[in-house]
Amino acid sequence: MAVPSTDISHYRELLKHYIETQDEESLYGAEQISKELIQNNVPPEEIINLHIRVMSELYPAIPDNFRYSLNFLLEIMIAYGITYQEYYSLREEQS
Amino acid sequence: MAVPSTDISHYRELLKHYIETQDEESLYGAEQISKELIQNNVPPEEIINLHIRVMSELYPAIPDNFRYSLNFLLEIMIAYGITYQEYYSLREEQS
Repeated sequence: MAVPSTDISHYRELLKHYIETQDEESLYGAEQISKELIQNNVPPEEIINLHIRVMSELYPAIPDNFRYSLNFLLEIMIAYGITYQEYYSLREEQS
Repeated sequence: MAVPSTDISHYRELLKHYIETQDEESLYGAEQISKELIQNNVPPEEIINLHIRVMSELYPAIPDNFRYSLNFLLEIMIAYGITYQEYYSLREEQS
């Protein structure tokens, strides 16, 4: 499932605040939004996609090596996403 | 479980090659290493930790905003890791 638009805004706001302040409150917010995303069945590769999108918006002149490294991380997470789908199927079968 | 040292070296090599060339072969390698990591029960937050470590080694002068953004991403993935642990417990109960 895609990331709901309210979660995108919330993620952008929290990430921006964390980068500027590195405060604990933003990390607590990250924990909360993470739980929401899991409840919405958002797979981990969509989190990386969301991170790439938000970082590109916040820092349009993002260095190429950073951008490429996130593309690589995205590919890594895709296999994790597939395993998550298996988990949800297993859970649904049991409920 | 922590990431095996051979996987750390392999990840570093593949990521470096992908950043330099953006070739499909490195992405295929990413898919393969990802499957290995899942088989070794490495949770997704450890992947982010691995990515932070390798990027710091490859680019010691990494900009602060990039470094902080990865710390934030790590926090997000911790909740996903907890869900994965539940998945493995569920699978073990069934086997």
